[in-house]
Amino acid sequence: MNKGIEQTLSMWRATAMEPSTFCGCVATEESSRFALFGAPFDGAASFRPGARFAPQEMRNNSWGLETYSPRLDRDLEEIYVADFGDLALSAASSEEALARVEATVALLFKHKKIPVMVGGDHSMTLGAIRAAVLVYPNLHVVHIDAHTDLRDEFYDNPLSHACVIRRAHELIGDHRIHSFGVRAGLREEFLFARDHIDFHPFSLKEVSILPDEIGNAPVYVTIDLDVLDPSVMPGTGTPEPDGASFADLMYALSIVGDLNVIGTDLMELSPPCDASGASTVTACKVLREWLLMIQ
Amino acid sequence: MNKGIEQTLSMWRATAMEPSTFCGCVATEESSRFALFGAPFDGAASFRPGARFAPQEMRNNSWGLETYSPRLDRDLEEIYVADFGDLALSAASSEEALARVEATVALLFKHKKIPVMVGGDHSMTLGAIRAAVLVYPNLHVVHIDAHTDLRDEFYDNPLSHACVIRRAHELIGDHRIHSFGVRAGLREEFLFARDHIDFHPFSLKEVSILPDEIGNAPVYVTIDLDVLDPSVMPGTGTPEPDGASFADLMYALSIVGDLNVIGTDLMELSPPCDASGASTVTACKVLREWLLMIQ
Amino acid sequence: MNKGIEQTLSMWRATAMEPSTFCGCVATEESSRFALFGAPFDGAASFRPGARFAPQEMRNNSWGLETYSPRLDRDLEEIYVADFGDLALSAASSEEALARVEATVALLFKHKKIPVMVGGDHSMTLGAIRAAVLVYPNLHVVHIDAHTDLRDEFYDNPLSHACVIRRAHELIGDHRIHSFGVRAGLREEFLFARDHIDFHPFSLKEVSILPDEIGNAPVYVTIDLDVLDPSVMPGTGTPEPDGASFADLMYALSIVGDLNVIGTDLMELSPPCDASGASTVTACKVLREWLLMIQ
Amino acid sequence: MNKGIEQTLSMWRATAMEPSTFCGCVATEESSRFALFGAPFDGAASFRPGARFAPQEMRNNSWGLETYSPRLDRDLEEIYVADFGDLALSAASSEEALARVEATVALLFKHKKIPVMVGGDHSMTLGAIRAAVLVYPNLHVVHIDAHTDLRDEFYDNPLSHACVIRRAHELIGDHRIHSFGVRAGLREEFLFARDHIDFHPFSLKEVSILPDEIGNAPVYVTIDLDVLDPSVMPGTGTPEPDGASFADLMYALSIVGDLNVIGTDLMELSPPCDASGASTVTACKVLREWLLMIQ
Amino acid sequence: MNKGIEQTLSMWRATAMEPSTFCGCVATEESSRFALFGAPFDGAASFRPGARFAPQEMRNNSWGLETYSPRLDRDLEEIYVADFGDLALSAASSEEALARVEATVALLFKHKKIPVMVGGDHSMTLGAIRAAVLVYPNLHVVHIDAHTDLRDEFYDNPLSHACVIRRAHELIGDHRIHSFGVRAGLREEFLFARDHIDFHPFSLKEVSILPDEIGNAPVYVTIDLDVLDPSVMPGTGTPEPDGASFADLMYALSIVGDLNVIGTDLMELSPPCDASGASTVTACKVLREWLLMIQ
Amino acid sequence: MNKGIEQTLSMWRATAMEPSTFCGCVATEESSRFALFGAPFDGAASFRPGARFAPQEMRNNSWGLETYSPRLDRDLEEIYVADFGDLALSAASSEEALARVEATVALLFKHKKIPVMVGGDHSMTLGAIRAAVLVYPNLHVVHIDAHTDLRDEFYDNPLSHACVIRRAHELIGDHRIHSFGVRAGLREEFLFARDHIDFHPFSLKEVSILPDEIGNAPVYVTIDLDVLDPSVMPGTGTPEPDGASFADLMYALSIVGDLNVIGTDLMELSPPCDASGASTVTACKVLREWLLMIQ
Repeated sequence: MNKGIEQTLSMWRATAMEPSTFCGCVATEESSRFALFGAPFDGAASFRPGARFAPQEMRNNSWGLETYSPRLDRDLEEIYVADFGDLALSAASSEEALARVEATVALLFKHKKIPVMVGGDHSMTLGAIRAAVLVYPNLHVVHIDAHTDLRDEFYDNPLSHACVIRRAHELIGDHRIHSFGVRAGLREEFLFARDHIDFHPFSLKEVSILPDEIGNAPVYVTIDLDVLDPSVMPGTGTPEPDGASFADLMYALSIVGDLNVIGTDLMELSPPCDASGASTVTACKVLREWLLMIQ
Repeated sequence: MNKGIEQTLSMWRATAMEPSTFCGCVATEESSRFALFGAPFDGAASFRPGARFAPQEMRNNSWGLETYSPRLDRDLEEIYVADFGDLALSAASSEEALARVEATVALLFKHKKIPVMVGGDHSMTLGAIRAAVLVYPNLHVVHIDAHTDLRDEFYDNPLSHACVIRRAHELIGDHRIHSFGVRAGLREEFLFARDHIDFHPFSLKEVSILPDEIGNAPVYVTIDLDVLDPSVMPGTGTPEPDGASFADLMYALSIVGDLNVIGTDLMELSPPCDASGASTVTACKVLREWLLMIQ
Repeated sequence: MNKGIEQTLSMWRATAMEPSTFCGCVATEESSRFALFGAPFDGAASFRPGARFAPQEMRNNSWGLETYSPRLDRDLEEIYVADFGDLALSAASSEEALARVEATVALLFKHKKIPVMVGGDHSMTLGAIRAAVLVYPNLHVVHIDAHTDLRDEFYDNPLSHACVIRRAHELIGDHRIHSFGVRAGLREEFLFARDHIDFHPFSLKEVSILPDEIGNAPVYVTIDLDVLDPSVMPGTGTPEPDGASFADLMYALSIVGDLNVIGTDLMELSPPCDASGASTVTACKVLREWLLMIQ
Repeated sequence: MNKGIEQTLSMWRATAMEPSTFCGCVATEESSRFALFGAPFDGAASFRPGARFAPQEMRNNSWGLETYSPRLDRDLEEIYVADFGDLALSAASSEEALARVEATVALLFKHKKIPVMVGGDHSMTLGAIRAAVLVYPNLHVVHIDAHTDLRDEFYDNPLSHACVIRRAHELIGDHRIHSFGVRAGLREEFLFARDHIDFHPFSLKEVSILPDEIGNAPVYVTIDLDVLDPSVMPGTGTPEPDGASFADLMYALSIVGDLNVIGTDLMELSPPCDASGASTVTACKVLREWLLMIQ
Repeated sequence: MNKGIEQTLSMWRATAMEPSTFCGCVATEESSRFALFGAPFDGAASFRPGARFAPQEMRNNSWGLETYSPRLDRDLEEIYVADFGDLALSAASSEEALARVEATVALLFKHKKIPVMVGGDHSMTLGAIRAAVLVYPNLHVVHIDAHTDLRDEFYDNPLSHACVIRRAHELIGDHRIHSFGVRAGLREEFLFARDHIDFHPFSLKEVSILPDEIGNAPVYVTIDLDVLDPSVMPGTGTPEPDGASFADLMYALSIVGDLNVIGTDLMELSPPCDASGASTVTACKVLREWLLMIQ
Repeated sequence: MNKGIEQTLSMWRATAMEPSTFCGCVATEESSRFALFGAPFDGAASFRPGARFAPQEMRNNSWGLETYSPRLDRDLEEIYVADFGDLALSAASSEEALARVEATVALLFKHKKIPVMVGGDHSMTLGAIRAAVLVYPNLHVVHIDAHTDLRDEFYDNPLSHACVIRRAHELIGDHRIHSFGVRAGLREEFLFARDHIDFHPFSLKEVSILPDEIGNAPVYVTIDLDVLDPSVMPGTGTPEPDGASFADLMYALSIVGDLNVIGTDLMELSPPCDASGASTVTACKVLREWLLMIQ
């Protein structure tokens, strides 16, 4: 009998090299609970661009990581994650890119999926929150980051990644954004934060108050990888010393993962700043552990 | 007598480290003939960003280059170039960035200067041409590049660096753009080029026809450094093999420099792609020689 | 009507990011004439490994390259190339890897395809020639390379990439291998070459004799990218100065492409040695032009 | 009087540049207690090769490190280490490379030396254990690593670095391998580990049980440097976040060093992944401290 | 009305790109309390040069850092720091470079400024101490470093960066130098240290004794950035594992900052060893925090 | 019979890894005609240091190069080159380093060797010429370089690498230095050159006049690798575009090699600027070919 090339070749082919997906993201569209997609846009980065390369670089390197988490004794292959590829954003304007992210997230909500966006720079989070707040009017946002991101504008640009939480605040109002780990910003941003958001700078430990504060309300969780110390995550556009350890972040996410997470993102890995490749691997492991932690 | 610190320190201070300017650009505002400025924008780069760092990196490295050209027996210090620093563009939208470039170039024309823009990605050239065509209705454009840049849009973005010559054509019409060195593009771009512009692909040799074609009409000269072969200029966002040698480019510029050049730019150096630093030095030398060639 | 996510997302999705293939390789299994596959093995590299990353890196970067060749006025999208992905070789032994390559090439011959292997180190070529010589007993090999690759063994390893042409000679005999561009090897290799193969060292120009020598006999063409000068192709494991220019190689391939090419490969790009990315782009352009040249 | 060149030159010559040895390894063959050699093989690395360059790069950089340890108040120059250079492995097959390592270690045992192998990828450890188990039938192995390395095969290769502890287990049986620090692997590897080896994942602290468990039995200690966190050791082929600190490793080795260590190795430094050079220095310091700790 | 170009352009110009100064160092000569200057000399580095590039690279990258410190709730813009640029040292001899540093620091003392030198290699500190001891005969030196720097000479060079504290000791005598964090040196250096200086190796914690020991005496504080662990600061010429964390250093500086600091320096950042850029950012943040801590 | 470890190990040991020498330099002190030594000093580099690493990096990488030259049909193993290792210069002052080079070269002349110095920065050449002019009062110098190196001082340093030919001129007088390939310098340097030396800027072709001009007089040949175009040799401290090709240099050296060469050097390779490693390989091949050309 004469089988086709594809069928025969599949015996020898590198499974990791097949249509490339983030490690273990093998669920079909229908069966999936989590819908991962890349948002390769870095046009709103103030300092060093490069985050546009993160989603593809994470896919390429994720096969150096097991799908199994010994800490959690769970496996990515068991939790129904589909990888829908990347949006076409790298050459778009900020507004157009945001519109595509918003439409994508809205579509995923319509199909009852949990969107998982992999950035790209942090500005793209606004698109996801725009979509989320329409579906979940009582939305909370958990914001894990080194920077306040509360500027009203940055060099005249209100859509800079340095303004994303300020824009989100305009959409969802006072005290519904919960920020942790912030250690950089203008003095006026820190003053604004203390008045208008639930602000826990410097450390991630105080996430422990979240279950009481938020209960079962819907939560969007945005993770800017620069919350990690530059020793752990040098490969980001705006590294900020004095940050969280990997274990600190794991602890925080284990608490946050028990909330009612309706969407999430992982932003600001910048492969051109990651000469050793270790930051990309770290981003992959954060994503794996985080997906396995969401109830 | 008690001189101040500044005055005393100036004996020991590294002149090259004083308020950093491109090598030999020491003319004052009033005395200058050429007005150099940086346009550190790379938000319209389709492939690899990084050109935003070019103007500052060129200033930092230009002191490894002499101001004197032995080939031409002329010296930058003798030709009245002022360095006005960089526009604030890196975090702007494409339209805002173009508006600032246009306003800057218009201002320089008003003060009778020859604007010399250092990119940044090639999309910024449109801002300069917008300003030039208002002052010089009979403007010609000499376009030296590896790519046609004649797409009508690129991933829905009409302001991509891949569209800049198409946009310029809309402003100045058929057969007034003269392209040399192009070796990459879509088939439809090549067809458009043959119908609508003065198109001389693959080589720079045919610049020899320019004096006859253009005469004394005003000319804006835009140089995309990727016209050079990647062996000579690897440090660019979209390197394209099979390009010009350094000597080829020098020959072409020596012809073009005898035209009535009313403005010019040098675009697409990308320092993050220039591991050895040699591309930055090459860009500096192209700029020095080019300024010394303009009559 | 309620379309699925995949269908709706396809409007916004980066086509270049879909199941990643080499640029323009969109033919189906059935319709394809050329069958491209990756052989990501570098276990036989004597000096600097890294060629295992070449096929995937070329796919990732090939979308910075147009599918259209202005030199040839042909387009990859018109010539029926299918990309079958990568074989699982990176962790295999040399013999096992060769066996998989041989089986793959044999399968492709059976289905009347022209195999196009992207290495990987040069040792993998032996697998392809083993398969080819069974189908085409009167096979000729055109060998374009900086190195003789005629060692009988290298540090006791007869399957080293430094031995591949010696092994090929054992299979197909005297004067059926035609080597061009070689400029490095032991004295005994050069002596062997002059006695046993059709040997044209230093330059590629003498490919012009091939049509007369070979006529319509079946030819396997193996291209070691280090034939190019290190200024053009620094990103290879064993760069050898004094090599061919890009134009030299294009000329040679344009002659060779008119022969009866029954299979081919492109070997020894090493992305870890390619800091600027220009070597990867150059490898992509060589492959595009070469495929478009084969009659 | 007319002294020879060598003798005269020795006054001015850089001692660090003389026949290059690992820092302070100046003992002669006869006087040495420790016999250091390099095993520059990375053909069994699953992900990123490069460990083949580690021994020579460590020698080159070790002179940036003092021979004296202030923590221990001991000096490498006082403990009789000879550096025998590198085996010729980089182009060998896995089996041939293992055979050479095995023969070398056997030879060193015969001459009453403690072999100290510097990798190279972790697969080479099997060669040393094969030799050790013949001389010491009651051998124990202390395994310090981020990965289980307990796969039965990896892409059909039973000699992959991901299988080395599984192969060792076949040689020395249940509960004689003591693993510490492991935080990555398949679920089935973790299940196997719990049944068949003395398994202490995640942390190095439990090495404190070793003196009671092992007593004075002969011990081979294999250290995969990726046990260290990627912040401390980014320069390794398969970095795995959430690892040990430098102090954690020093503590563990100080306990292990009091056992009856009959041989040891230090594997998986990968200089091409070490852009800053800090990982190479760290590997050198681990080796210096570890040698000074062995009783 | 017709304003000049400079005046008009200032609306659009990137303030961060104006005559480049370290972030927030905007005080005039007269108003300044701190006088920052660069000492770009690395001719006395024993191992890897590159520190000459540190001052300019820190200026270029400091605008990725806010001027506001949330930890301290103070802002660089409020504390009167002037940036006097760099001395011309990179091509000088050691003695000439030291003479220029000494003259500069003396000049600054004369004008009642606190000199803040940014290295350059650690050898330059001797110039500053030479000037300080003339003005403050009862000077103390706080020395924060990974290395003893107490060699009498290094390869016959008594002005090597490995000798700087030995030279300082000759100037100011026994028990007036207070060293913290040292973890590398020759045995004889450690013996010398215990006899002649106030020596607290391995950790920074014991700075707590300084207020009692020194009281209000004048103190020069020299910080060699390699006191930080290589995970935090890989970008230095001689990284030494087992070092201080960022928080450890902040704690130590917060104590030292309450002393009577009459001058200070920050040495040994080496940008060529800082592939990710994170070390440069870390150096900037250390400098910002340190300036804000000095009373 | 019981052979020692060294003897037995030699069967398996990597010959290339034995006491590392430049490829093929296996002659003993007595038998050697050429005496190669490294001068790892870069303290006089004006721009980017790093040349201190060149000799050792060339040794490490030279085994990727054959000892046999097919162009010349000669082999390094046949011409009696001894590698005497490196002088201890990296931490020395300029004067001390020059003194050591001078003493070394004088010693080699005394023993009737042809000294072959591998830099290091170009300033070291002065030490060799000081020694040569004492032995050969009628010495000529052939100077192949991109830069005039005729400054009287550079930032007050008369021993800068930018002054070396000016210093040499002071020793050997007018018209005895023959410069080729120079394309950068101050106008006053070019004027000085035309008056005082045999000056052939821009190209290497005019070396053809040397046999007539010099005849059989003793010649010291100094090669600054930056004479090569940056496309061929990016890895140098001060790359200068518009330079020689590899073939141009080979042609020039083939003429010069027929003169009475009594000593030579190869300077200014800078490995930290050589990300791909291709410049190091090119330097090795230049050295191999050059040694094989000297009669």
